[in-house]
Amino acid sequence: MNKHILPAILLILCSTFVSAQELANFMSRKPIVSPEFNGSEVIFRIKAPKAREVRIYGSWMPNYTDTTPLTEKEEGVWEATLTVPEPDIYTYHFIVDGITMSDAANILMQRDGTRYLSMLFVEGEKTANYREASQRGNLTKVWFDAPTLGMNRRMYVYTPYGYDQNKQKYPVLYLLHGGGGDEDAWSNMGRACQILDNLIEQGKAQPMIVVMPNGNPGQQAAKPLMLDEKSFDFQDPSTANLYIHSLVKDIVPYIEKHYRVVAKPSSRAVSGLSMGGGHTMSVANHYPGMFGYIAPMSMGIREGQEIDAQLQALKKAGYNLYWLACGDADFAYPGAKLLHEALERNGLEHTFHVTGGGHTWSNWRDYLNTLAPKLFR
Amino acid sequence: MNKHILPAILLILCSTFVSAQELANFMSRKPIVSPEFNGSEVIFRIKAPKAREVRIYGSWMPNYTDTTPLTEKEEGVWEATLTVPEPDIYTYHFIVDGITMSDAANILMQRDGTRYLSMLFVEGEKTANYREASQRGNLTKVWFDAPTLGMNRRMYVYTPYGYDQNKQKYPVLYLLHGGGGDEDAWSNMGRACQILDNLIEQGKAQPMIVVMPNGNPGQQAAKPLMLDEKSFDFQDPSTANLYIHSLVKDIVPYIEKHYRVVAKPSSRAVSGLSMGGGHTMSVANHYPGMFGYIAPMSMGIREGQEIDAQLQALKKAGYNLYWLACGDADFAYPGAKLLHEALERNGLEHTFHVTGGGHTWSNWRDYLNTLAPKLFR
Repeated sequence: MNKHILPAILLILCSTFVSAQELANFMSRKPIVSPEFNGSEVIFRIKAPKAREVRIYGSWMPNYTDTTPLTEKEEGVWEATLTVPEPDIYTYHFIVDGITMSDAANILMQRDGTRYLSMLFVEGEKTANYREASQRGNLTKVWFDAPTLGMNRRMYVYTPYGYDQNKQKYPVLYLLHGGGGDEDAWSNMGRACQILDNLIEQGKAQPMIVVMPNGNPGQQAAKPLMLDEKSFDFQDPSTANLYIHSLVKDIVPYIEKHYRVVAKPSSRAVSGLSMGGGHTMSVANHYPGMFGYIAPMSMGIREGQEIDAQLQALKKAGYNLYWLACGDADFAYPGAKLLHEALERNGLEHTFHVTGGGHTWSNWRDYLNTLAPKLFR
Repeated sequence: MNKHILPAILLILCSTFVSAQELANFMSRKPIVSPEFNGSEVIFRIKAPKAREVRIYGSWMPNYTDTTPLTEKEEGVWEATLTVPEPDIYTYHFIVDGITMSDAANILMQRDGTRYLSMLFVEGEKTANYREASQRGNLTKVWFDAPTLGMNRRMYVYTPYGYDQNKQKYPVLYLLHGGGGDEDAWSNMGRACQILDNLIEQGKAQPMIVVMPNGNPGQQAAKPLMLDEKSFDFQDPSTANLYIHSLVKDIVPYIEKHYRVVAKPSSRAVSGLSMGGGHTMSVANHYPGMFGYIAPMSMGIREGQEIDAQLQALKKAGYNLYWLACGDADFAYPGAKLLHEALERNGLEHTFHVTGGGHTWSNWRDYLNTLAPKLFR
């Protein structure tokens, strides 16, 4: 295209990252490729000429102590050839002489709260909807006023393919993240846009808007924005459930004013994982009749938690679907079972969707992929 | 807010990153804080109990070989206390026994092409507009059809604060990245949203839409999206300048159809750095009269490059501003000087904005901050 590209790249490299020696090395050798898929195997590589021990831990390994050693090959490049794990999205890191580090050769990275993790994407049936679809919706980082919290805040809003080409009104899924997450979590780790794009393109899910707010009521936005945070005393009854109230009083009205949406309960869904599953249950209980579709994931109630009166009110108000999902190896499973029993005891029609696995994004992505086709039917 | 937060965080940590031993360590000790500002000093820290040598390189150091050693303190934590560099945004990395790695304790990270770099934000007058303003515009990741390239592609579109609250029409700045970059570069490394938010809030810049396309014509979107890429033969005259044509025939019409914009030359600006500076000059030359504001940064022409006829056509078509910016230590400076001379020789009114510094984001952020107030006046 023009002659400036190569010197520009070299200079950018020089100016930000590599030493003169590294640049000389860079010019004289092949770049490290990692991870490299090769049939049923995947090869991980890292250049560490002075290392005494290099190991890898991947989230596909059953236990956190199940690291695998890499072997030193030519020119200080360490390598491990592993069997490709089952199709899914995983994270992994190297451990070089005891220091955990991400894979510098891998451009795929996820931010999980405060940490950045290298990502392994294994192709297969389970992950087909986690790739880009052909028809893709837009994602907007929206700033809105939240008077309930006294802050201007950020949320992510997904509008489905076609939204900008017609005058149609859409239903809305409010999709809530877990503890340690923020408004970025569902679109990044959760692949929410890809999942919805694919399901909508395949005709399996209704076209819908997906709203991904920040569920930490003291935050204006995710921490990398370096904005001041508020602290609320959640022991104080006047601030308890403040985020729930903001969701209903600030976020839903903003969306229903600024987007072409069907503003009625049967076109409003709320779902979330872990802390966001708690928010999902709470908002359904505090505002019965507000959301037609209620889908907490990986959460539950405590033994003896008084919820019957709220569930009776919810039953009376009515809803379209109550869908509770949890893995049987999830620490939240006993609580989820208690919620399932409370729903049953109170005669609330619902699905208790029990899978294998634990408190993981592997499950949450799968739950979203399973849930979305059931919404707004 | 609810009782699930702490176990959820611990379990997420367990499931993705730390070994049992690391978790035990994590529970028993203070987390590493790095970087830590302390008056005129900044302390960098990394836990590396088995390391023999730890050094740091930061982009504020004059030469790529100017690394500084860290010293081992308690419990394998290495530390270096440095003088805080001049206010700016920098990137840095540790070098542990010869391996470069980012700072795991630092949540601020930039993706520079294929690499992820730890970021140091030094407060001061120069960086005041790089922080979040109080009134913030939205950023949308937009998918659009580019028939000129035969692809559906992604661009980022910034709409200023207030855009969703009025019926006003806005001017548009098309802001182009450099070699190795993509549609993410200007909003991430370039802090384009923060700079525009601040300038608009201060009344120094006209409210404007900023369109940040992907300037690599073979890419549908940035590489982390794992989409197939096309390869074009740019030696073939029929594909030369294909991206320039797509900008004018695909991108401008999409924006003018889908956003409330003033669709006339005096409300269209184009600017870009390095490769994007080349694109800026090319699109101005190939489509004289299309853009009223033309602002290449860190680019120029070759000795003997024939450009006079194009510049005469541009002069005849007319424009509002031609603003060429370059650092005097930039490798592109001699070429920029040649372009300046060609503009002068052909009698095109322009500004040659020469600063110190080289081919760096430090300059490009500063140029955007200087340029934006001059647009659409």
